[in-house]
Amino acid sequence: MAEKIKVAVVGYGNIGKAAIEALNVAPDMELVGVVRRSVSGAQPSELANVKVVDDIDKLGKVDVALLCTPTRAVPETAKSILAKGIATVDSFDIHTRVVGLRKELGEVAKKYNTAAIISAGWDPGSDSMIRAIMEAMAPRGLTYTNFGPGRSMGHTVCAKSKEGVRDALSMTIPLGTGIHRRMVYVELEPGHKLEDVARAIKEDDYFAHDETHVIEVPSVDALNNVGHGVDLIRNGVSGTTANQNLRFEMKINNPSLTGQVMVSCARAVLRQQPGCYTMIEIAPVDLLVGEREALVGRLV
Amino acid sequence: MAEKIKVAVVGYGNIGKAAIEALNVAPDMELVGVVRRSVSGAQPSELANVKVVDDIDKLGKVDVALLCTPTRAVPETAKSILAKGIATVDSFDIHTRVVGLRKELGEVAKKYNTAAIISAGWDPGSDSMIRAIMEAMAPRGLTYTNFGPGRSMGHTVCAKSKEGVRDALSMTIPLGTGIHRRMVYVELEPGHKLEDVARAIKEDDYFAHDETHVIEVPSVDALNNVGHGVDLIRNGVSGTTANQNLRFEMKINNPSLTGQVMVSCARAVLRQQPGCYTMIEIAPVDLLVGEREALVGRLV
Repeated sequence: MAEKIKVAVVGYGNIGKAAIEALNVAPDMELVGVVRRSVSGAQPSELANVKVVDDIDKLGKVDVALLCTPTRAVPETAKSILAKGIATVDSFDIHTRVVGLRKELGEVAKKYNTAAIISAGWDPGSDSMIRAIMEAMAPRGLTYTNFGPGRSMGHTVCAKSKEGVRDALSMTIPLGTGIHRRMVYVELEPGHKLEDVARAIKEDDYFAHDETHVIEVPSVDALNNVGHGVDLIRNGVSGTTANQNLRFEMKINNPSLTGQVMVSCARAVLRQQPGCYTMIEIAPVDLLVGEREALVGRLV
Repeated sequence: MAEKIKVAVVGYGNIGKAAIEALNVAPDMELVGVVRRSVSGAQPSELANVKVVDDIDKLGKVDVALLCTPTRAVPETAKSILAKGIATVDSFDIHTRVVGLRKELGEVAKKYNTAAIISAGWDPGSDSMIRAIMEAMAPRGLTYTNFGPGRSMGHTVCAKSKEGVRDALSMTIPLGTGIHRRMVYVELEPGHKLEDVARAIKEDDYFAHDETHVIEVPSVDALNNVGHGVDLIRNGVSGTTANQNLRFEMKINNPSLTGQVMVSCARAVLRQQPGCYTMIEIAPVDLLVGEREALVGRLV
């Protein structure tokens, strides 16, 4: 095999940690370092043998940067790294802003002769690929993406922000046909009533449109679990034949899958022409280790 | 939308018929005609308003030919049509010969500045894409492709070829972990014993490695059904996290799905550089009707 792909990880939260785990077992890649805002003080023990810097320029040659920052920091971070001629992969997850980000990064990537893959997680990400393939198999019909049971990051942050909430966990429960129940577990600050907290949560726009239950628990930490899942269902029409039933289901560790998908996309991004891509624009074979002909022989 | 894609269908069996049904409802395509070996005599009523010819040259301009001939005729037919500068799509289904065919057609396609997508059905085909994506999500682990219940064409033809068999149907029954039972329903010719026929079938290499049951029925035709299915399961490792459970299941009309996948690939083949491709080498978005940015906005 040729020289290994030199990968930098930018940001070190749950996803950054999972991405490094996936990088360490990828036979065709090497981690050249981690970029963090603050590099003073003690680093986590698993980074003991990893170069940790506050600026990607300090890492020497980098082929691909995996952007594991909070999603809202992705656009600016991506543009500054693409402008150095380094390819980027992110898991930007605000579905409604994907088209805009793709256009914005596409211009920068082309200018600096490099490429970006955006929204490379599981949804958006691998689920998007499955939805596209299902639609190619049965062009008319409805697809329902049913999430969970699993923690919703956005809803959890919203619930935590309410007055009187010490800690919270918002679980997404699939009710079918893309409808979800929110089960919100809260630890209260002394002197606050569940009734008031529950009202504040249910009135927030994040929760107002879904069936929401707020439950007081002694310890939110005792409930935490990064297990998640999806049940993606399409009943559609192939040609003129109705009742074609397609289904993709998974039960997974959420950050581990996201980190792995990003690492697979780090391989794919170097196989693209300059520009910015979402995963539905990537040929599946480009995600995999090895020579194309051997992969065709094994997987087709 | 731009001018419609001009499609010819070569061969008119179950798949050719299904492909035409899918073409007729594709908003961006038009059927320019059907190529059959014999065009004398009455044509099926559904071809009343379709140009039926014995040579593709008689159809005028053709952008893509869908090869709906028996699988063994695909290589020669594809080469002769690619040499006219017409793109081809086939559903060649001999898994072990895909790599060779890809190479052979790739050379012809490049020479005549056109493209081919081969093995564009559901397995090989859309299942191959799913297998590749699952492997990108969890690179270590086992994938099991469980087929059926549904009719196996190859096994049915084999059973029919045995002495004393008037008609036969071989059903593939999934037992899990990629192991299948063969349920063979036979109508016997007078004077033949089930015992002898069953022995001949079970000794054939097609059946010798699987659990096989041979059952006499008064009418095979009464059992015929083009329903089929797959249950594609991967339990794998993302990074260092085991027990990632991925599953793709479908229950479908077999020829309708194959015809539809071929039609979706007729769109994709015109979006590729000259060469020959399997479906794992095609970006899912290329299979779909419409502008790329709109598809990204809707599906990602």
